[in-house]
Amino acid sequence: MSLPPAPTFDDVRAAARRLDGVVVRTPLLENARINARLGGRLLIKAECLQRTGSFKLRGAYNFLASMSEADRTKGAVGWSSGNHAQGLAEAARLVGMKATIVMPADAPALKIANTKASGAAVVLHDRVKESREEIGMAIAHKTGATVVPPYDHPWIVAGQGTAGLEIVEQAKALGVALDAVAAPCSGGGLSTGIALAVKGLSPTTNVHAGEPAGFDDLARSLAAGTKQKNDKLSGSICDALLAPTPGDVTFPLALRLLGPGLVVTDEEVLDAMETAFREFKLVVEPGGAVALAAALSGKLPVEGRAVTVVCSGGNVDHATFARALRRHAP
Amino acid sequence: MSLPPAPTFDDVRAAARRLDGVVVRTPLLENARINARLGGRLLIKAECLQRTGSFKLRGAYNFLASMSEADRTKGAVGWSSGNHAQGLAEAARLVGMKATIVMPADAPALKIANTKASGAAVVLHDRVKESREEIGMAIAHKTGATVVPPYDHPWIVAGQGTAGLEIVEQAKALGVALDAVAAPCSGGGLSTGIALAVKGLSPTTNVHAGEPAGFDDLARSLAAGTKQKNDKLSGSICDALLAPTPGDVTFPLALRLLGPGLVVTDEEVLDAMETAFREFKLVVEPGGAVALAAALSGKLPVEGRAVTVVCSGGNVDHATFARALRRHAP
Repeated sequence: MSLPPAPTFDDVRAAARRLDGVVVRTPLLENARINARLGGRLLIKAECLQRTGSFKLRGAYNFLASMSEADRTKGAVGWSSGNHAQGLAEAARLVGMKATIVMPADAPALKIANTKASGAAVVLHDRVKESREEIGMAIAHKTGATVVPPYDHPWIVAGQGTAGLEIVEQAKALGVALDAVAAPCSGGGLSTGIALAVKGLSPTTNVHAGEPAGFDDLARSLAAGTKQKNDKLSGSICDALLAPTPGDVTFPLALRLLGPGLVVTDEEVLDAMETAFREFKLVVEPGGAVALAAALSGKLPVEGRAVTVVCSGGNVDHATFARALRRHAP
Repeated sequence: MSLPPAPTFDDVRAAARRLDGVVVRTPLLENARINARLGGRLLIKAECLQRTGSFKLRGAYNFLASMSEADRTKGAVGWSSGNHAQGLAEAARLVGMKATIVMPADAPALKIANTKASGAAVVLHDRVKESREEIGMAIAHKTGATVVPPYDHPWIVAGQGTAGLEIVEQAKALGVALDAVAAPCSGGGLSTGIALAVKGLSPTTNVHAGEPAGFDDLARSLAAGTKQKNDKLSGSICDALLAPTPGDVTFPLALRLLGPGLVVTDEEVLDAMETAFREFKLVVEPGGAVALAAALSGKLPVEGRAVTVVCSGGNVDHATFARALRRHAP
């Protein structure tokens, strides 16, 4: 299967039609106290309330629904230790096709159980000794199943972008013209998809991608104009945001559509999770909280402006969540 | 001011028009894994995402917006240590009128700060030595301010009922005909308001009120046909659900509209809070989780049915939330 052309605003619109009635139109929430503190309007797109606990269902479902009937009968294969696994497995269940997910044997038991609960076949691999890509590609080769990548594909980008359409429509319904929108970024599927949607409806709104310190490959790539790599592959609390470098599909879009990157520390992320708990009654995972962290820390200015941040996932374990709460025990 | 007549379905409709654009149309959420486990469809009305973190804004705003212009200039007064204080204070800010809230001096500092942040004057009292009703009534007598009760008034009931209109409309949009709706109950404002709305739109749907064990005055009153009192005034984890007996406005409605009461233990409530965290990414306070606890424990059957439970508030302190998480540490 050759790669379709770069995704456009119309592709996001088409994805929204496919996803209508499938994904939750997650709410846009604000808080009078936080607005008063920041001196502007901060709107949270609560994508942690999406089915499977993250935005990943949008892109995965759009991908599967865009495949030919013939390819669909042969199934889908993907690899992920986290949100993409759960999103792809559930999308396959909803579309009514087989899915095989390659997951590390030491992935959290709950995530493996959740992926299986959607009916996917889970193949466990040894994270150190085996390549999950090789295992996944071998399954695809043997069965004819289609590989569904986590971010670097036009259909994935267009699907994630539907969250951006909702943001602009929901802000408009509240009478708000948005100055900026920010979303968490690993490989860039969500942030560039949202940028396609937001720039299509509201060209003067700035769109930013948020990353954890030390894993700011996109921010550095945007500044340099060429793709940069992260030095490390692990070591941030944001386990969902560790892609090593921007994607081939996503980086050209990022260069064209995104403003400067936002980079936040683990401490700022934990503070943002605690604020989401206390003020917004939302469970947000570390990687899902980076854009909120940028707004609360002042790195993404809210004063005198209207800003939406995407809280992109809520799949966090008890111990990590308790750690965020402990920082602000009353 | 004499009491208006008992609230009707049309009063809930009128309240919904007043609240349009003021309250959040909180989402109706479901989870494929929980549905599979229960063998039916469980829909959560996530009212913890409401402004001020609970449904209380609905009734308080409807009350203030229903007052005469002349009365509104003289302000509002109320007493509460929790959600009603925050809802009334914020409603007054939104309507643009003065509010005085009598709160116990030993109420959580955060709740006092939140009430003040909405611009209300807070009068602290000694919970043991002083009567908050007497202090509040004295303020009303001196200033001409109107007392806004937490539940026992037709305008409050009608306002809370708007959540019920949303439930039926949102379920219909999902193609779901509801067999039952359940809501937490203290004085009965929320549950009877919702019953008015739900029975008006869908007469065959059963509506139930949930209460904590030991504070099941409504369940026993419904069974007896006459008002019963709780033996205790404290001692449940559900700090928001400790009203001693059903209200004069709410009990006749409850007798006419509600099915048998649902009574849950503190342990079932903590389990429900943990499930809300893990599967729905929602922060729910103990009192807000009793209806969910009834559904998850089987006391409110979901098998083969479609059931909505209201998660009515999310104002929970860090320590209590951590206690819920610890019960299921992976």
